[in-house]
Amino acid sequence: MRPSKRASDQMREVKIQRHVSSHAEGSCMISFGGTKVLCTASVETNLPPWRRGQGLGWVTAEYGMLPRSTGQRMRREATAGKQSGRTQEIQRLIGRSLRAVVDMKALGENQITVDCDVIEADGGTRTASITGAFVAMMDALSWMKERDLVGDNVVSDHLAAISCGIYRGTPVLDLDYDEDSAAETDANFVMTGKGGFVEIQGTAEESPFSADELAQLIGLAQKGVNELVELQKAALKDQ
Amino acid sequence: MRPSKRASDQMREVKIQRHVSSHAEGSCMISFGGTKVLCTASVETNLPPWRRGQGLGWVTAEYGMLPRSTGQRMRREATAGKQSGRTQEIQRLIGRSLRAVVDMKALGENQITVDCDVIEADGGTRTASITGAFVAMMDALSWMKERDLVGDNVVSDHLAAISCGIYRGTPVLDLDYDEDSAAETDANFVMTGKGGFVEIQGTAEESPFSADELAQLIGLAQKGVNELVELQKAALKDQ
Amino acid sequence: MRPSKRASDQMREVKIQRHVSSHAEGSCMISFGGTKVLCTASVETNLPPWRRGQGLGWVTAEYGMLPRSTGQRMRREATAGKQSGRTQEIQRLIGRSLRAVVDMKALGENQITVDCDVIEADGGTRTASITGAFVAMMDALSWMKERDLVGDNVVSDHLAAISCGIYRGTPVLDLDYDEDSAAETDANFVMTGKGGFVEIQGTAEESPFSADELAQLIGLAQKGVNELVELQKAALKDQ
Amino acid sequence: MRPSKRASDQMREVKIQRHVSSHAEGSCMISFGGTKVLCTASVETNLPPWRRGQGLGWVTAEYGMLPRSTGQRMRREATAGKQSGRTQEIQRLIGRSLRAVVDMKALGENQITVDCDVIEADGGTRTASITGAFVAMMDALSWMKERDLVGDNVVSDHLAAISCGIYRGTPVLDLDYDEDSAAETDANFVMTGKGGFVEIQGTAEESPFSADELAQLIGLAQKGVNELVELQKAALKDQ
Amino acid sequence: MRPSKRASDQMREVKIQRHVSSHAEGSCMISFGGTKVLCTASVETNLPPWRRGQGLGWVTAEYGMLPRSTGQRMRREATAGKQSGRTQEIQRLIGRSLRAVVDMKALGENQITVDCDVIEADGGTRTASITGAFVAMMDALSWMKERDLVGDNVVSDHLAAISCGIYRGTPVLDLDYDEDSAAETDANFVMTGKGGFVEIQGTAEESPFSADELAQLIGLAQKGVNELVELQKAALKDQ
Amino acid sequence: MRPSKRASDQMREVKIQRHVSSHAEGSCMISFGGTKVLCTASVETNLPPWRRGQGLGWVTAEYGMLPRSTGQRMRREATAGKQSGRTQEIQRLIGRSLRAVVDMKALGENQITVDCDVIEADGGTRTASITGAFVAMMDALSWMKERDLVGDNVVSDHLAAISCGIYRGTPVLDLDYDEDSAAETDANFVMTGKGGFVEIQGTAEESPFSADELAQLIGLAQKGVNELVELQKAALKDQ
Repeated sequence: MRPSKRASDQMREVKIQRHVSSHAEGSCMISFGGTKVLCTASVETNLPPWRRGQGLGWVTAEYGMLPRSTGQRMRREATAGKQSGRTQEIQRLIGRSLRAVVDMKALGENQITVDCDVIEADGGTRTASITGAFVAMMDALSWMKERDLVGDNVVSDHLAAISCGIYRGTPVLDLDYDEDSAAETDANFVMTGKGGFVEIQGTAEESPFSADELAQLIGLAQKGVNELVELQKAALKDQ
Repeated sequence: MRPSKRASDQMREVKIQRHVSSHAEGSCMISFGGTKVLCTASVETNLPPWRRGQGLGWVTAEYGMLPRSTGQRMRREATAGKQSGRTQEIQRLIGRSLRAVVDMKALGENQITVDCDVIEADGGTRTASITGAFVAMMDALSWMKERDLVGDNVVSDHLAAISCGIYRGTPVLDLDYDEDSAAETDANFVMTGKGGFVEIQGTAEESPFSADELAQLIGLAQKGVNELVELQKAALKDQ
Repeated sequence: MRPSKRASDQMREVKIQRHVSSHAEGSCMISFGGTKVLCTASVETNLPPWRRGQGLGWVTAEYGMLPRSTGQRMRREATAGKQSGRTQEIQRLIGRSLRAVVDMKALGENQITVDCDVIEADGGTRTASITGAFVAMMDALSWMKERDLVGDNVVSDHLAAISCGIYRGTPVLDLDYDEDSAAETDANFVMTGKGGFVEIQGTAEESPFSADELAQLIGLAQKGVNELVELQKAALKDQ
Repeated sequence: MRPSKRASDQMREVKIQRHVSSHAEGSCMISFGGTKVLCTASVETNLPPWRRGQGLGWVTAEYGMLPRSTGQRMRREATAGKQSGRTQEIQRLIGRSLRAVVDMKALGENQITVDCDVIEADGGTRTASITGAFVAMMDALSWMKERDLVGDNVVSDHLAAISCGIYRGTPVLDLDYDEDSAAETDANFVMTGKGGFVEIQGTAEESPFSADELAQLIGLAQKGVNELVELQKAALKDQ
Repeated sequence: MRPSKRASDQMREVKIQRHVSSHAEGSCMISFGGTKVLCTASVETNLPPWRRGQGLGWVTAEYGMLPRSTGQRMRREATAGKQSGRTQEIQRLIGRSLRAVVDMKALGENQITVDCDVIEADGGTRTASITGAFVAMMDALSWMKERDLVGDNVVSDHLAAISCGIYRGTPVLDLDYDEDSAAETDANFVMTGKGGFVEIQGTAEESPFSADELAQLIGLAQKGVNELVELQKAALKDQ
Repeated sequence: MRPSKRASDQMREVKIQRHVSSHAEGSCMISFGGTKVLCTASVETNLPPWRRGQGLGWVTAEYGMLPRSTGQRMRREATAGKQSGRTQEIQRLIGRSLRAVVDMKALGENQITVDCDVIEADGGTRTASITGAFVAMMDALSWMKERDLVGDNVVSDHLAAISCGIYRGTPVLDLDYDEDSAAETDANFVMTGKGGFVEIQGTAEESPFSADELAQLIGLAQKGVNELVELQKAALKDQ
């Protein structure tokens, strides 16, 4: 029995609210249950120096948690003077994932920076960030298209991410914080709308997991990402 | 004529929404027109080392802006590896202001840290932060009182802050970003409910201001803070 | 009664000694009683990148305290690896104040950097710094004029600064360290020779101050700045 | 055809040389073809503060690359003033992997720090590091056992790691640098001697990979880790 | 012919003015011609943690240059966020030199920190710093003796330092900046009053120097240090 | 009697193995007894900005110690976030020494960076680094000559370095760690093949050393460097 009483293959309620920033070219607030992430996509028409002059664009991401997004107040990274290893790992993952569905030639010499700032954390902040970042990026691309900066074909597919894990011996979908901190295995999957894998990360927290358990986690992730892609499509259909 | 068509002594619409964080002991989202700041107050029952063993508490604050809270994306301070001078100035101001109305003996050996994170910026983020931080702190003190950690007498008075400035030769109340970036003089006032001054900062951006203009700014600030204190009282009356 | 036996509106003895640096284009040692600050103004004919190509100059300032300028040795900021928030606040204030009386077009694409290094501290280091920085800058401008780098009209007015405060209930002028550490209210005023306000900062250390007290502090500041401007004029008259 | 002419399921020659450090309690030089990593395990009988007093030990790892271990000289991280995100990711992975096979209670209040320093890099440095780190840790544990600091039962299983990827459409085992920089998909597997998964990371560099391709990569990894574990056993058998 | 017309074995005029700081336990302003260094010695009755509980004291030094102590303004190290390699080298040298004549047991569990801040630089700042630091330390020890914190026997001998070099083929004593920047060889000698060597550093800037030249430099240094020790004695004799 | 039973003028066994790096243009592993340093020389055809456009090349060096190259594990400098003062001193010394025998005009607008990474430390790491760095640089120059980037005349002489010291009252050559940590005086000499001095550094650890002792140390160094240069020549003659 999961602490939240959810079935093993049941995600938390996911909400995506677009146009939440008056400044950003694309933005959404995404929530996976008690996890809330503000995603803003910023368009810049100049590139970092190492990327210039190749006719290719760039997509990158940054991630942060507000100090009191968690049960215990965390130290602010700006005060600490550096981003933690975990923060860097997550923002590298978000950027890499987004780039997997973007045609850099079609983007032209423009850069999109997606900021994912966790307002409230209850597990799964990185998967919520990726799923929301895709939506914010899509809106930024619409903004660019309206200004004839890009055409239609920049993005090749939908992109969403979900966590799974083995909790008390059972593979379950979309871990919340209570499950995450007790799970034997924790895995994150980034997938496309057509079911391709973009990134897969699985970690045994206590005892190793078997090939069979891995197969079950993959199945759960496929179900979860399918649902998330439907929610993205619904959200993006609205004006 | 102000860009926003407001009268010279008219504030923007101010909204205070409490209990917006599921983790923090006190919290509110405060908006001054297009400026939105999330204020969370975190209670800790241990003090920084230099403050221990004196029977006194401590109140401190940190301030941050989300990278795309502004018209142009700003560099994330955690990535830059340090807080800017401006950020440090503002968070020192918020903490100092809050401490001016707190009886440290009544607080006991506890610390309250208020985080003010700017979600959207349209001028006046430091004054909105102080005004919201007071509300979040009050809720944190209620949380402490329910647990018998403090009594009733921790806070001596209300505390709120407002900006004024001289815009195109006219003293005006509560500058928004358009006014702020063009104002000849920019001033911030932190005041108590009873009308005492806690902090006053005035800066001539272009030409010096006169004693008479300063007097007018003071009058505007008094009007503004009175209104803010009423709004705080109304917000705090609700459960 | 003030610890120094001074009358409430009496400043400490102020001395300004010019041409104390063999390298700097302008320099002075300024003392307010036991506070001694070395101010050097350095002329550079190239600008920071963000300022170039606009036909405008730039004036900036840096501030530091020698580790044993104080009663207790302070940690050297270069060893600590960063400037404190207080240091940054003060050097931003000095630069902002100087810029208020400089015509950037008349300065041309040149930069003046004023370094204010506190040799001995006994309260009022920031106001001594501003008052001395103005003199050093004037000498640097004379140096530039001799080389036809600028004309006569770069500076629009004199600039000086003084602190005031409420000490044991009485508004007093020019706080020394003993008064500063016990004052209920501490304020700094930066003013021009013609009496305009360039910057005003007042902080209630313990209990809020009233509008009436603020008015008295303003009066003291006007008297103090008048005297300082006379001293600057006398100092600058000498070869 | 692979650039190295290897069969798709063929690893590079792997060599493990133990006792290469005269100071470290355990050490080995491990090479996977042209990749050479020096692994040293250091025993400390005191723990980091947050771990003390729980009767549990700790295992951690650090990773570095010599500046000219690569084709182009890289900037030295000590000069840059921080470890890159990639370095932090890798050293977190090594430490987490080692901890998965260590019984922290059996280790007692001791810490083992494994340093993995890349002498030459030709792809697969993180998997070589993990495989070598395990050997160095085993020797450190033997050193401890000789001194009655631990018993026999500290480690529950062997641990090794291997990379796989999809290169020109074909799943291949143990990517070298030429393959790695051109691969469509790059994956790393950390597994135990009994075939359990400790960590799995797969990244699509260009186009997403399918569930079927993932299954093939898993099969290759299982073969590779089996071979590595045999090599570890052979190496550890020697005095 | 030296640019300053001095004879090859002639030092610049050296002045030592004691009691220049109102706060420091010992202090002096020392000048070697146009080089001026403020040396302050601070007594602390607590030690750094690693030195405690051994019945031994500690002497350490820090060195800094004011930004405009030089012909071109240098970047302030506190702004740069770190001390340069040169600064660290020099302050390590000063501390090491002072410790060579101090009996740490006789000093007891006290620390003396000597700050050497260069007010004006014209070559030889490190040797002026050491020579002045010794005087400031002696005054700090007198201060301690008056308070019965130490006895008479803390210092075993005088300590002074001088530079020599080979300028246009001729060994010369006490290089000024013009000579230093053109010298073929630059050397610094730290010696005791009895003529023992504490530190010797010689660097060939262009072509290597011979054993014979080295011998001549040593002779010049002995002469210079003798004169400096006489000046120290004279300075310390005064009240 | 020396702990290693060596005669007072006897060096440890020195070995130089060239071509140890598959990437670097020049490289060697050098050992002085138990001290082992990997030296790699990297050729870059672009210069640091401050050196460009003068028709001159540049040679620089960096130094590091692997964390467990020592008896006690040291903190990794990349983790600490900065290089220690000692590291900076040593790498500045290596670079300065190499530059003393290089004709920068003959090198052309190219840079050689020599990395000296200590694999095992047993005293004398800086002198081993310099001696090995010279060999690696020579191989890098051969690599450049083969590509017609430079001619024959870049290097004017051999360069090697050795430590000496006064151990239990006796001047001895080539201190190992046991001697170094107990020596009364520690000195390092960098010399050319023709016997010129490039750098000389002597430090009295406990009691000052005399002019006579210094002369004996110089004699030992001359003998040691002669032997090292012969070993360099032999090593460079091969392949």
